[in-house]
Amino acid sequence: MKTSVYIATSLDGFIARENGELDWLPGIDDNSDGKGEDFGYHEFMNSIDVLIMGRLTFETVRSFEQWPYGDKRVIVLSSQPLQIPNDLSDKVESTSCPPAELIQKLSEENCQHIYIDGGKTIQSFLNADLIQELIITRIPVLIGSGIPLFGPLDKDRKLRHILTRTFENGFVQSKYELIN
Amino acid sequence: MKTSVYIATSLDGFIARENGELDWLPGIDDNSDGKGEDFGYHEFMNSIDVLIMGRLTFETVRSFEQWPYGDKRVIVLSSQPLQIPNDLSDKVESTSCPPAELIQKLSEENCQHIYIDGGKTIQSFLNADLIQELIITRIPVLIGSGIPLFGPLDKDRKLRHILTRTFENGFVQSKYELIN
Repeated sequence: MKTSVYIATSLDGFIARENGELDWLPGIDDNSDGKGEDFGYHEFMNSIDVLIMGRLTFETVRSFEQWPYGDKRVIVLSSQPLQIPNDLSDKVESTSCPPAELIQKLSEENCQHIYIDGGKTIQSFLNADLIQELIITRIPVLIGSGIPLFGPLDKDRKLRHILTRTFENGFVQSKYELIN
Repeated sequence: MKTSVYIATSLDGFIARENGELDWLPGIDDNSDGKGEDFGYHEFMNSIDVLIMGRLTFETVRSFEQWPYGDKRVIVLSSQPLQIPNDLSDKVESTSCPPAELIQKLSEENCQHIYIDGGKTIQSFLNADLIQELIITRIPVLIGSGIPLFGPLDKDRKLRHILTRTFENGFVQSKYELIN
């Protein structure tokens, strides 16, 4: 089983503005029809069984015009019970399960590839050494402040650089594996 | 005249630990003899007339076994008058001149290419729109905390991606131009 992060950040390392806005991210809706360059997103999404995200990311994604994950299973981490809207109740569940337990449970359910999303969630999974792969797409813009991708760590984490792709619009996408 | 930043950061965007330490930066001394892969450093250094850095960066660099900038002219930004050691007095000067004035002065002295170094200095020059080029080398390690390359901005800054090079040791170096 593998857990991956696939995320876009500003060049200064933010995944959203303080209020969750993604207005600095060009063409966020341009590829929703599957046409054009999608920076490997659909291939990645096709490879995963389940998404795990925090409540804030869930709320941001909920505010999009269209639910972007199709029928993919989504688990929202929340210390409080979460009201799941009716139209999502067949694919979204919430849990207050700690990261390691959740991963153990999903492994027993035979999940092969898990997508970890959202700043706080990624940070807690990194600190628990529960991430195997990072795919980071750098957007050529500095926004100065916002929600950071990375946060404090209890110790350094070394990575193995797997590959980097550049795109005509200036996006730079690097794939890393965590070295444990 | 062009002003450039050439800097290494951890994957989480730090240029040094809180205390200025660079122990997470592999092979920092390996290439000081000019042999082996130097990630374009000597070519870059050969192209510049003068370095501008803050007092903290100056003190970090002073603590290195060897002064790394040869006879290159170095200007240290410091609000307080700075005691320049005798062995550096012919190449290092200090100033409390604001960034825009300093750049204007160097332009009048016919400087062609200026290297802006150090977190705070880079941030203040970026905010004053006095940087034309960023060359950032990402080291494949997360250190969790430290001195960040980037800081708050009064507004977004867009960049043009020029090129990205990857190295066998996992370093990923991207060159950007600021779009003003």
